[in-house]
Amino acid sequence: MPIRATVWGENVHEKENEFVAQNYPEGMHGQIAALLNEDSGISASTVTLQDPEHGMTVEKLDQTDVLLWWGHAAHNDVDDAIVDRIAERVWQGMGLIVLHSGHHSKIFRKLMGTPANLHWREAGERERLWVVNPGHPIAKGLPPYFELEFEEMYGEPFSVPEPLETVFVSWFQGGEIFRSGLTYRRGAGNIFYFRPGHETYPTYHDKTVGKVLRNAVHWAFNADRHELLMSAPNRGVEKALEKIEERGAKLANHPK
Amino acid sequence: MPIRATVWGENVHEKENEFVAQNYPEGMHGQIAALLNEDSGISASTVTLQDPEHGMTVEKLDQTDVLLWWGHAAHNDVDDAIVDRIAERVWQGMGLIVLHSGHHSKIFRKLMGTPANLHWREAGERERLWVVNPGHPIAKGLPPYFELEFEEMYGEPFSVPEPLETVFVSWFQGGEIFRSGLTYRRGAGNIFYFRPGHETYPTYHDKTVGKVLRNAVHWAFNADRHELLMSAPNRGVEKALEKIEERGAKLANHPK
Amino acid sequence: MPIRATVWGENVHEKENEFVAQNYPEGMHGQIAALLNEDSGISASTVTLQDPEHGMTVEKLDQTDVLLWWGHAAHNDVDDAIVDRIAERVWQGMGLIVLHSGHHSKIFRKLMGTPANLHWREAGERERLWVVNPGHPIAKGLPPYFELEFEEMYGEPFSVPEPLETVFVSWFQGGEIFRSGLTYRRGAGNIFYFRPGHETYPTYHDKTVGKVLRNAVHWAFNADRHELLMSAPNRGVEKALEKIEERGAKLANHPK
Amino acid sequence: MPIRATVWGENVHEKENEFVAQNYPEGMHGQIAALLNEDSGISASTVTLQDPEHGMTVEKLDQTDVLLWWGHAAHNDVDDAIVDRIAERVWQGMGLIVLHSGHHSKIFRKLMGTPANLHWREAGERERLWVVNPGHPIAKGLPPYFELEFEEMYGEPFSVPEPLETVFVSWFQGGEIFRSGLTYRRGAGNIFYFRPGHETYPTYHDKTVGKVLRNAVHWAFNADRHELLMSAPNRGVEKALEKIEERGAKLANHPK
Repeated sequence: MPIRATVWGENVHEKENEFVAQNYPEGMHGQIAALLNEDSGISASTVTLQDPEHGMTVEKLDQTDVLLWWGHAAHNDVDDAIVDRIAERVWQGMGLIVLHSGHHSKIFRKLMGTPANLHWREAGERERLWVVNPGHPIAKGLPPYFELEFEEMYGEPFSVPEPLETVFVSWFQGGEIFRSGLTYRRGAGNIFYFRPGHETYPTYHDKTVGKVLRNAVHWAFNADRHELLMSAPNRGVEKALEKIEERGAKLANHPK
Repeated sequence: MPIRATVWGENVHEKENEFVAQNYPEGMHGQIAALLNEDSGISASTVTLQDPEHGMTVEKLDQTDVLLWWGHAAHNDVDDAIVDRIAERVWQGMGLIVLHSGHHSKIFRKLMGTPANLHWREAGERERLWVVNPGHPIAKGLPPYFELEFEEMYGEPFSVPEPLETVFVSWFQGGEIFRSGLTYRRGAGNIFYFRPGHETYPTYHDKTVGKVLRNAVHWAFNADRHELLMSAPNRGVEKALEKIEERGAKLANHPK
Repeated sequence: MPIRATVWGENVHEKENEFVAQNYPEGMHGQIAALLNEDSGISASTVTLQDPEHGMTVEKLDQTDVLLWWGHAAHNDVDDAIVDRIAERVWQGMGLIVLHSGHHSKIFRKLMGTPANLHWREAGERERLWVVNPGHPIAKGLPPYFELEFEEMYGEPFSVPEPLETVFVSWFQGGEIFRSGLTYRRGAGNIFYFRPGHETYPTYHDKTVGKVLRNAVHWAFNADRHELLMSAPNRGVEKALEKIEERGAKLANHPK
Repeated sequence: MPIRATVWGENVHEKENEFVAQNYPEGMHGQIAALLNEDSGISASTVTLQDPEHGMTVEKLDQTDVLLWWGHAAHNDVDDAIVDRIAERVWQGMGLIVLHSGHHSKIFRKLMGTPANLHWREAGERERLWVVNPGHPIAKGLPPYFELEFEEMYGEPFSVPEPLETVFVSWFQGGEIFRSGLTYRRGAGNIFYFRPGHETYPTYHDKTVGKVLRNAVHWAFNADRHELLMSAPNRGVEKALEKIEERGAKLANHPK
């Protein structure tokens, strides 16, 4: 059975900005899903902010192995309760791939525990992504570097936790660098942040970007869900694995 | 100038449970501060949940280099706005040491991005903490292991992110293990989680525990505050470090 | 095509110690290979120290995707040139799984850059391995813990580098703990250290141990080989990706 | 007492190349030591390859808290026995700072367990080092970035293990990036790799470079030496911390 990827699109600039609309007539989410569907091992569908429950219903999450998230203009329009629902799925094992301006999304900030700030410039400059970790599954089959002739610049410091591994680092024409591919695990869920993807440029029409996204879906996939991680049970003395005797003072009602 | 440590105490069980009151007549926070003040390089004071703004006023945080946090029964009574205020200080460089049941505090969960669950047993069993990273500053001067004859058991999996470094791992009499000393950085702030400290046992009267806490304060201390990390500024093409020319389509109003 | 796993066995105690011979009539390597071959996605073969070039010929390494290494009594009998040959394969992408007393093998020490010391006791005590990272692929399908009734004890500090991730931590009956499952990448090669496996006990007859080893083979597998990582080429100014002009003083002959 | 830093200089190009000789009339090691001695908390001395035992006598190592290493042309002239001696000191707690072309030194490769390769270009191009981890002690007091107008380029992939933390990432005029400041711990010893420092350019006359090196010495300093990490002792059943009884088959002579 193919990996079920769900692409979440904010779908705002596609409607309000003619450049974006021309660039992505099927929506950015539509084009990202198309890139994923080039791989027969992935079955990608899309939802958007405007859908009921932002498309992140319990039913849809039940059918999602890996979630991809692109947002920019409307992060604050995403309901906190939906964000919490998604976070719980990640902790239980759903993969999450956060794209570009999604660094400021509620779900990414919540899972990182940091503001995820950076500095930026929208000038259509050249970005060159270097593979610093060629053995990582997300880099599989990639050349030593690849270029995006037009991209928005993101500059360091990127206030995110030290990653498990750094996969890509970007060079920008204007003089900045950026850690553009970072991996994390939160609970049982694999998380990948991938920097490129400004809406006015043709980034999601790039073949190498497509390959990265497909690799990332395979890497982030985890078939299991770990509900165990969602509770903090008491294992009383009678359940101790080695025989012990209770002793010492106790709280009457342990408030966990 | 000594490092200014502030010990935050929940101060609930000290008032409601006679064992705890006898164990810590000055409050747990009072005893923890006493342990820290054995070091002339540390100046420790205390605040509690019941203080105005839970003691975490802007003024107090301005005077805090490292915050220690002990809470258990009343995590949900801490205002979210205060939690956000503390998190911002950590991101800018304030140190944070989270103790025992503080694993479920709002501030720890927020900074970890995970539920920080575990399983537990209150049976006064023996805990033996092994130093797995003897070169770490927090382990400075410690023996290869130390024992707490009476402690609450915490068992894995502890759903927190992979730490920067694991310093201690605990052995429990009843058959469990636990990663008991874990380091993180979030933004510019150093964070240490230290497991022992159940309120009905004499943990904070233990000399080795005192040494660990003092070491941790020194490790977590960072004199600087990085306000830069709190914003995401535009650095326009005119400020580019290398001369570039703007090109390509732009969003009219970049909504960052 | 199944993953080609090669099990390297020292094959000394099997011949010299009657307990070991009875325990593993096909050799420890033979039994480990049998565990792996329960998975149709793995094709495991064996070599031993006594084979020409210790079985680690260029031809055999060409046919090896993941190497498993068990040694104990004869680490120093392994030729340095063969160790170097294996290390180069790991750096290029071959997986490596180091078992039990293999912590002191030349290949493991070389790849870790540390002495990989620990303390130990051979008393047939109970070991309980806790899964501290249930979302890791090596823990796939495992229960929260599993027990080996008879094992040698290894105690911390285990002088190895902080791993990418800690997967297992062991509890020992005699009072110690040990980080029993650790992951690393060196160059493009995935490395997993797995603690259990003392030769006089029936560890490699345990079903859960078999599952861990099979999971580890799948995790460590990398089809690609990265020869790029084996050289340090000059990319002269004429090959610069951005046009630059040579300037400043030069060394006449750059001795790289 | 100030931290005792020893600067190890290869001292070959200073004698053979007139540019280098003019650039560093006191030798590169002399200038690096001068940068360190600007800090009254550091007392820096120098040794060179040409000294007896390459200056790395037992006595000198006894008097060294942090070792800095610059080499390029003569890595292979360093005796393996001396390299082993230095590695043992690092494992026990001596700090090590490896500079520029020292990435290919025997001591660095040995401690990394990887070839530490990269690609390079000697064209006097502009390097801009970005601080990606502003809260790290090595970045203390630094601006968001600093520039070296003339430097050799080093390009990724840099085949070293994923670091504990990445502190600096470099931008190069010719289109490459490089992870220029990386931290590790091996045994109890702190290790920092810092990229800049080509001998024909005035890098070690730069004030910010001096500040980085002084910060790094303070960060790497560990007053303690952990000889415990150098052995693998048997702790027999009679020394078990919890009472256990020996059982099961034993090896007659445990060959550790």
